[in-house]
Amino acid sequence: METKDLFIKSLLEKDKKLLYEILDEIYPIDIAIILEEIEEDLLLVFCQMMDKKRLAEVIEQSELTLQKSILEHFSMSDIIEIFSYMSNDDIADIIGELPFQLRKDILRYMNKSESNEIEHLLGYAPDTAGGIMTTEYLALKGDLTVQEAIVKIKQIGPRTEVLDVIFVLDKAKRLVGTVELRDILIADERSTLYDIMNDNVISTYPDEPQDIVSQLVSKYDLTVIPVINRRGALLGIITVDDIIDVIVEEHTEDLLGLGGVSKEERVHSTLSDSVKKRLPWLIVNLATAFLGSLVISSFEEIISQVVVLAAIMPIIAALGGNSGSQSLSVVIRALTLGELDLKEDWTLISKQLFIGLITGLSVGSTAGLIIFLRYKNIYLSLIVILAMTGSLIIGSIFGFLIPVILKSLGIDPALASSIFLTAITDVSGFFVFLGLAKLFMPFLL
Amino acid sequence: METKDLFIKSLLEKDKKLLYEILDEIYPIDIAIILEEIEEDLLLVFCQMMDKKRLAEVIEQSELTLQKSILEHFSMSDIIEIFSYMSNDDIADIIGELPFQLRKDILRYMNKSESNEIEHLLGYAPDTAGGIMTTEYLALKGDLTVQEAIVKIKQIGPRTEVLDVIFVLDKAKRLVGTVELRDILIADERSTLYDIMNDNVISTYPDEPQDIVSQLVSKYDLTVIPVINRRGALLGIITVDDIIDVIVEEHTEDLLGLGGVSKEERVHSTLSDSVKKRLPWLIVNLATAFLGSLVISSFEEIISQVVVLAAIMPIIAALGGNSGSQSLSVVIRALTLGELDLKEDWTLISKQLFIGLITGLSVGSTAGLIIFLRYKNIYLSLIVILAMTGSLIIGSIFGFLIPVILKSLGIDPALASSIFLTAITDVSGFFVFLGLAKLFMPFLL
Repeated sequence: METKDLFIKSLLEKDKKLLYEILDEIYPIDIAIILEEIEEDLLLVFCQMMDKKRLAEVIEQSELTLQKSILEHFSMSDIIEIFSYMSNDDIADIIGELPFQLRKDILRYMNKSESNEIEHLLGYAPDTAGGIMTTEYLALKGDLTVQEAIVKIKQIGPRTEVLDVIFVLDKAKRLVGTVELRDILIADERSTLYDIMNDNVISTYPDEPQDIVSQLVSKYDLTVIPVINRRGALLGIITVDDIIDVIVEEHTEDLLGLGGVSKEERVHSTLSDSVKKRLPWLIVNLATAFLGSLVISSFEEIISQVVVLAAIMPIIAALGGNSGSQSLSVVIRALTLGELDLKEDWTLISKQLFIGLITGLSVGSTAGLIIFLRYKNIYLSLIVILAMTGSLIIGSIFGFLIPVILKSLGIDPALASSIFLTAITDVSGFFVFLGLAKLFMPFLL
Repeated sequence: METKDLFIKSLLEKDKKLLYEILDEIYPIDIAIILEEIEEDLLLVFCQMMDKKRLAEVIEQSELTLQKSILEHFSMSDIIEIFSYMSNDDIADIIGELPFQLRKDILRYMNKSESNEIEHLLGYAPDTAGGIMTTEYLALKGDLTVQEAIVKIKQIGPRTEVLDVIFVLDKAKRLVGTVELRDILIADERSTLYDIMNDNVISTYPDEPQDIVSQLVSKYDLTVIPVINRRGALLGIITVDDIIDVIVEEHTEDLLGLGGVSKEERVHSTLSDSVKKRLPWLIVNLATAFLGSLVISSFEEIISQVVVLAAIMPIIAALGGNSGSQSLSVVIRALTLGELDLKEDWTLISKQLFIGLITGLSVGSTAGLIIFLRYKNIYLSLIVILAMTGSLIIGSIFGFLIPVILKSLGIDPALASSIFLTAITDVSGFFVFLGLAKLFMPFLL
């Protein structure tokens, strides 16, 4: 039998021994995934059978909806007990989503020092360093000897989540260095933490956006990054597993944004959810498509005389759009990775111009040749070559400019860029091609 | 003065004291970034001034081109010395890119055990677990006591890269568990590693694709994942910083692939590089655009009679394409994250059909209303509504199907999906709209 079936069997038969055997074999995240798919009444049985500590591990790995459903099955004092096994950042994430009154009640039930820390965490925006940090870490004074540090670690160790890196504070409680656990094991017992610490610490501020923090962690190969205030005092830490979540989240936003879907849609979203999330973008797209249509309408006279123009014009617009998406992907990528410096890199625009020119002439000549073979009209071919080159230059430049401009306006470039780009490449593609056709009309008839 | 200017000054003046002061202040990755931008003769000065150990740290953080330029300044014996400070996976990555003869020479110069390990690493495909793993880790026998383990760690520690997790082997040298360094510090000195180890280890095989490995690390919040063979023997480990690189790389492929750019293009690529990488995709796009154009040509008769059709048809095709990209982004996202089970989720197609139907009717009615207000022809509006609905159903379904089919054929869906999708939505959009117009022709004149 598969693990999932065995798990459900243990719940149906209220077989605690079997349930705990399964729990020993699989990870909390796997349990969370199974729980998301089972019925409400089985979830209740599960909650009744679990001890609070293991339940806390499962909750930490669950999606918000599941977290709420689980907690609904418990009294206030049970919830406080479950929370006592969880780390502060996870508790803050859950509490932050609860109705205001319930949140206040829970915080009042907790012990003062913990509720203070959580209220503090709740004060940071969720997509900043402060919003994703945890306040559980090990910080020691720098004048401790290695021997004294080991005694401290043995005392505090079992209660803290992260211990591979120990943060070293000076007398004013400012963060001055880090010591890795392995250095403590290897070092002379009489040396102080000051002696063995790394004093070149990469750190961040609580209001730093999470994508900037993830760039730091990725660039410097960190497993943990400390968050400090402007005076250098340690406020919390962000561990690499949370950074991976941030990177995956930013990835999702970029990818879905470019496809014209808001970031929350998942492949398993409900039908009405998917429709609600897609429709606004389609309506915006309809508006931009009508813009292109308006351009075509104004040339109806020309098209009715040379109807072959109608068959060729979408090619020009399509290639301009494609060229624009190419620039767009490269730039959005660079913006996400922090590789593009907005001040210094305006010169890159001229590069886009030349890319558009060269690819436009190449693709345009190919298209022009095919058109000539088919319609035997050299002027039509020339128009195609010129229009294609113009269209690709425009696409390539605007594919670069739009995300850069949106970013400098504080708008997420992944979300809005493609809409603006399509509008521009459609309108300009149709206009350049039909405009040229109008100029050369006598030679086309 | 900025760090970079100071750094260059220290090279120009051959000021070793200043250079080493700077090196103490910044990280190897920052030096690597500066080196990528300086002139060849300054790079030579840098190589002459650096001690081999610190140079090795910089090389580990450099791009391949820079790595090669640096190593060119050294003799074979110098290179072997530099390599002695580097980890095996980094050495293998560099050597794997060298000409065959040079590679053989370097391997012959190395000591036998190291060259064996590197040749072994060179045997794995670069985008598999084997290709990104390192063979440097700490593995101890499970019957060692904690006290004995600490002695071993103090002996071996300074020479190994990763020490936060220690791998526990049984008598047959199979991987049976892991112990974290913190557990060793806290545990009773007389207990054995078997007593304190976690025996539920997530591991992977060397031929596993790197994106699957990164999903495991991300799902289970690991900082390191062991690579084992089918008999359970430990072959190597992959650390989380390399996993972050994999995630960022896969992100790049998805994003650029959807935009129609091959994965290697960067915002700072040279002009000819960018053109070479974009042109093939544009030519493919030209071919698919001609397909749509062929459809239009076959309806030229109709268009010449009702020229307004030429202005409306791109709207239908554009919305179909947009609807397709929406499905595409959601599905590619799910495939990258491993959220989509190809066997179980074929039922999702019917969901796509309904999404297409509902959004198609909504967007179609809006468009139909606008068309009616403008051209006062109810039949034209009806055609628009029908064609839009058909086009969005087709886009939505194929946006889902294409990546799923490509994936099951072993083709990277991010790279080829949008080309196929555009071809299908263009051709079908034009065909459905103009076909309906032909049917209702008498009412349009």
